[in-house]
Amino acid sequence: MFARLKPKSGLFYTLFTSSSQCIRNGAETLAGLTRPDADHAAVAEQMVELEHECDRITHELFQTLNSSFITPFDRSDIYVLGTALDDVMDHMEAAAQLISLYGVAEMPDKLIDVIATLETCSQVTAEAMPRLASMKGLQEYWITINELENTADNLYRTFLAELFQGSWDALTVMKLKDVADELEDAADAFERVSHVVESIVLKES
Amino acid sequence: MFARLKPKSGLFYTLFTSSSQCIRNGAETLAGLTRPDADHAAVAEQMVELEHECDRITHELFQTLNSSFITPFDRSDIYVLGTALDDVMDHMEAAAQLISLYGVAEMPDKLIDVIATLETCSQVTAEAMPRLASMKGLQEYWITINELENTADNLYRTFLAELFQGSWDALTVMKLKDVADELEDAADAFERVSHVVESIVLKES
Amino acid sequence: MFARLKPKSGLFYTLFTSSSQCIRNGAETLAGLTRPDADHAAVAEQMVELEHECDRITHELFQTLNSSFITPFDRSDIYVLGTALDDVMDHMEAAAQLISLYGVAEMPDKLIDVIATLETCSQVTAEAMPRLASMKGLQEYWITINELENTADNLYRTFLAELFQGSWDALTVMKLKDVADELEDAADAFERVSHVVESIVLKES
Repeated sequence: MFARLKPKSGLFYTLFTSSSQCIRNGAETLAGLTRPDADHAAVAEQMVELEHECDRITHELFQTLNSSFITPFDRSDIYVLGTALDDVMDHMEAAAQLISLYGVAEMPDKLIDVIATLETCSQVTAEAMPRLASMKGLQEYWITINELENTADNLYRTFLAELFQGSWDALTVMKLKDVADELEDAADAFERVSHVVESIVLKES
Repeated sequence: MFARLKPKSGLFYTLFTSSSQCIRNGAETLAGLTRPDADHAAVAEQMVELEHECDRITHELFQTLNSSFITPFDRSDIYVLGTALDDVMDHMEAAAQLISLYGVAEMPDKLIDVIATLETCSQVTAEAMPRLASMKGLQEYWITINELENTADNLYRTFLAELFQGSWDALTVMKLKDVADELEDAADAFERVSHVVESIVLKES
Repeated sequence: MFARLKPKSGLFYTLFTSSSQCIRNGAETLAGLTRPDADHAAVAEQMVELEHECDRITHELFQTLNSSFITPFDRSDIYVLGTALDDVMDHMEAAAQLISLYGVAEMPDKLIDVIATLETCSQVTAEAMPRLASMKGLQEYWITINELENTADNLYRTFLAELFQGSWDALTVMKLKDVADELEDAADAFERVSHVVESIVLKES
């Protein structure tokens, strides 16, 4: 009867950590697409499974939130953090789908670099999430993500400039732009995650 | 003076139902575009009017929310549900505008199927909204919407793959992709509506 | 110790006004791009600086919000208003980047008109923000913004119809569509700002 009143802080931290680990698996799987012999359809399918797993974790997070009277930090911060983590996975999965669907035969170098940057973001994020419980050592995390997002952003912009310089036909430009947009959205979502973490830490300090 | 304290639950249910009926009219009007002899400009104009009607309902919903002290369920759920319903109409109206504006002479089969799926979504949603008052018999609704959204999503993805296989010129590809994106966004918004309903019912049970 | 309890209403009004002034500078700088002899790279760089300045103001606004126990109006309205103002600047900056990045040599007339409309929006908004403190004389503001947004929307739609009529090659169409979309998003964000202001005023009256 009083289950709603019992703090479940531990469960929240576990779910944020699980979500970030799922995302790290997703980023590593996505990076598999950049190998010359990659089986695009198989990778896209694996990404769908990982995205479903991430969905399940987010769903459990929101159910825990709805059934908890006491939460380790602001309810809305928990909601926004869960949503932002979920967004990262959604955009990486969408990018994998497009690459497979459009039959993108050869990934341009700049996009391979963006995917490598996303992989680093995912590792840094998965290392940071368990530290939410102690709120310690997180500043380095959000500074690193900010730098990585700037790197991804510069790669994206340089790639767009290249893309429209006339070396590719119009249909290929459209396909690659769609893929690049999803990758850029994933980088933005990683930054949003780090912003929420920063705001949580600043409120507590 | 105590008007703010008087529960207006009935008015909330009436407004959600009106919004969903307006959307069903919109989906049926949109489906008119897929007939070979359709007058695109006339349909686009009708869609603008329906979108304005839906806007007025959403506006009244938010005003009722602001002036009510007691609400039938979480204030933020009412806000999100109203916004998601409004989004459905916005995307369907935008699709109709683009079809008219771009002079899309012939609708591809897959897009006709997506529009038929949206029409079914709108009927299922309009039947479910009045059941919010009793909170009964809604599970079937959100399961059906989930299946319909999967159908729309598969149609959309198969269509994208077709679109870029080189049978259409680049400008036509761009136009049809824009239309397809708005239709897909409308399907996503229907799913968002069903997710809020699911979350409201689960909180109450 | 009781700093959190001291009302800081004045600071909120000052920050909203600063943000709107920064946006007005941004709109004027963006309008510089439409001159035949414009240095696109230089303008894009100025826009980045203005966008950073606007970011700093938004950041200070959110920090003030987090550290204030009493706020001049609903916390969520302050959040949404700050975000909407920030969005205006983001979209104008993104438009400037794309124009520079894509090497858009000649701006089409309709897009020049959209930018002029955004400039007027920015002036009207910067004049309205200081009036939030008294909540007086704001109705004219949101009516004007609504009209300006309709103007921008009609220009955008007419431009899209022109764009796809075959006078431009596919790559140019893609570039100009991207720029037009960002400008349209900026106009929408101005309207969102006015909607929040309207809702704040109506709640207080």
